[in-house]
Amino acid sequence: MTPLLESAALNELAGGRVLLKAESLQRTGSFKFRGAFNRIAQIPEALHKNGVVAFSSGNHAQGVAAAAAILGLPAVIVMPRDAPTIKIENTKGYGAEVGLYDRLTDSREEIGGRLCEERGATLVRPYDDGGIIAGQGTCGLEIVRQAETLGARPDTLLVCCGGGGLTAGCAIAFERLLPDAEVMTVEPAHYDDTRRSLEAGEILPNQSMQGSICDALLAPQPGTLTFAANEGRVRGGLAVTDREVKAAMAFAFRVLKLVVEPGGAVCLAAVLAGKIDCAGRTVALTLSGGNVDPDLFRSVLEEQGDCEEQGDCGP
Amino acid sequence: MTPLLESAALNELAGGRVLLKAESLQRTGSFKFRGAFNRIAQIPEALHKNGVVAFSSGNHAQGVAAAAAILGLPAVIVMPRDAPTIKIENTKGYGAEVGLYDRLTDSREEIGGRLCEERGATLVRPYDDGGIIAGQGTCGLEIVRQAETLGARPDTLLVCCGGGGLTAGCAIAFERLLPDAEVMTVEPAHYDDTRRSLEAGEILPNQSMQGSICDALLAPQPGTLTFAANEGRVRGGLAVTDREVKAAMAFAFRVLKLVVEPGGAVCLAAVLAGKIDCAGRTVALTLSGGNVDPDLFRSVLEEQGDCEEQGDCGP
Repeated sequence: MTPLLESAALNELAGGRVLLKAESLQRTGSFKFRGAFNRIAQIPEALHKNGVVAFSSGNHAQGVAAAAAILGLPAVIVMPRDAPTIKIENTKGYGAEVGLYDRLTDSREEIGGRLCEERGATLVRPYDDGGIIAGQGTCGLEIVRQAETLGARPDTLLVCCGGGGLTAGCAIAFERLLPDAEVMTVEPAHYDDTRRSLEAGEILPNQSMQGSICDALLAPQPGTLTFAANEGRVRGGLAVTDREVKAAMAFAFRVLKLVVEPGGAVCLAAVLAGKIDCAGRTVALTLSGGNVDPDLFRSVLEEQGDCEEQGDCGP
Repeated sequence: MTPLLESAALNELAGGRVLLKAESLQRTGSFKFRGAFNRIAQIPEALHKNGVVAFSSGNHAQGVAAAAAILGLPAVIVMPRDAPTIKIENTKGYGAEVGLYDRLTDSREEIGGRLCEERGATLVRPYDDGGIIAGQGTCGLEIVRQAETLGARPDTLLVCCGGGGLTAGCAIAFERLLPDAEVMTVEPAHYDDTRRSLEAGEILPNQSMQGSICDALLAPQPGTLTFAANEGRVRGGLAVTDREVKAAMAFAFRVLKLVVEPGGAVCLAAVLAGKIDCAGRTVALTLSGGNVDPDLFRSVLEEQGDCEEQGDCGP
C-alpha cells in the first residue's frame, strides 16, 4: 500500500485539503505494478511455463517484469531498440527477457504476436483489459480507505490519464465506495484524447504520439474497455501544459520532497495552476509515477529556478 | 505521522528488511518540527505573548517557526546574514520574524540572549532540552508501531546524528518498546563526535564545523542531556563519507523516488556502503530531512551519473 500524503503548505496554497496518492513510491516506481500483478495472477497455472509478453518502453514494462518475476512466470518485454538504456536495464533488472525491435522497420505487434504464438505466452495489455483495470482500481480503493483514517472524504478525485486504465479502475471503486465524489481525468494539453472522447461520446484519437514531456500518458486513444468504463463515471477532463507540469515537478521536489515523473505530475499541475477549485473542498489526486531520467530532472530544476528568478513561470 | 517505507529493490540489495522512516516528508521537511512543537506546547500560557527565540540557519529554524505559528506564539529566528536566501525565505514563510547577524562581527548568543531578556521570550534549543528530546522520540515510537503493522520487528535502528536529540528520543522509545533492538548513530566521517564520545565515555567535540556536505549534522559536540541519554542506550556509531552520502542521495532519487538532503541520507549511505550487516535482519533507519538546495541536488545527480559511467563510485 502506498501512502496517502498531505502537505500543510500545499493545503494552504490550494485553500482546501489536497490528498496525494504517492504511486511514485509503488514497487517499480509507478501504479502499473498493480494491474500487471492482478492480470498475471489470473493466468491459469498450466500456461505459467509459457510466460507473458508485453510491449512497452516504460512503466508497464517494469510492472509486468516485476510482477511476472514474483509470480514465477518468464516474461518477454518487447521494447524499441532506441529506448533509454536505463529503462531497458531496469526491465532486465526485474528478470525479464528484453526483445528489441527497430521502430522504423519492425512491427512490435508482429514480433509480440509471433512470440505469443510460438511460446503459447499470454499477452499482458497495458490498459484495455479487465484484469488490468481491476488491479489499478486497488489504488482508488486505498485512497477512499486511507482518506477515512485521515478524517477526510474526497469531493473530487483527479487521475493522471493515458490509456485510461487507472482512471477506469479508480472510477469504478469510487462509484461503489464514494458515489457523491466526482472523478476527473488530467491529461497533457493537445493529448487530451480522453477528455475529448468523453465530451464527444465516442473514442477520438490523439493527433500525435510525440511532442509532450509526459511520455507515460501518450496512448494513441482511449481503450475500448476503459472508455466504456469511464463514460458515465468520469465527470470530465482537464489538460495541463508542459510548463505547468515542470512547475509541479519542481514543487514536488522543493515542498513535497518527492520525485515525480512528468506524466505523474499532471494532477498536481492542475491544482497548482488553479484549474480545479479546491477552496473549502477535499481533492484527492494521483502522483502516478516517479520514473524520471536524472538528466531531465536536473534540467527541470534548472529551468524552473531560472523562470522563478525572472518572475516568468507562466503557462 | 510520516510513512515507514520499504523498497523491494533495497531489501534485495541489503539482503534483509530495511524500513525507512521518511522524516523528509514531515511538516517543514525534517523531524525538527516534532521537538519544536512539543517544546513550545509546554510554554506556560502567560508567556505565550512574549514568544520564542531560536538560533539556526537550517531545519530547526523552520521547525520552530512552523510550530510557533500553529501554537500562536510569535517567533524570532536568529540567522546568519549569509544564510541561503531560500532558508531565510522559508523561515519567514512560516510566519517568523528573522533577525540577521553578521557571523564575523556579531555574537548570535548575545543577540538571542538580549531578545529573550528584552521580550521575556523563551529560548528553544535545537537538541539539549528534555522537551525537544521527547518530541523527537515520537519518531521512534512511530517506527516501532508502524513496523508492527508491517509484521516487522527491527533488530537495529540507525539514526542520523548531529547534536543527538533525535537519537536520544528514539533510543528512549526503543528502550521501552523494543529493548532487544540495538540503536546506533550514523554521522559524517571526521564529524563523528557522538561515536567518539560514546567510546571515550566523555563528551568530545568535533575538530571543525565545516567541510562536510552534511550541514544539518554539524553540531559542535554532543549535548549534555543528549549524551547522558545516549550513553548506555546507544550501542555505537558509524561514519560515512561525503561520497557515500551522495551515492545514497542518488539512490534515493533513482530507486526510492525520495528527495533526501545530505544529513538525512547518512543512514541509508551506511546500509548501501555495507557498513551495517543487514543479511537476514530487519534494520530501521531515519531519512531525517529533505531540505536540499536544487543546485546541490542537481550537482549530486550529475556527479553520480558520471562516476557510474566511469565505474568509479567508491568512497
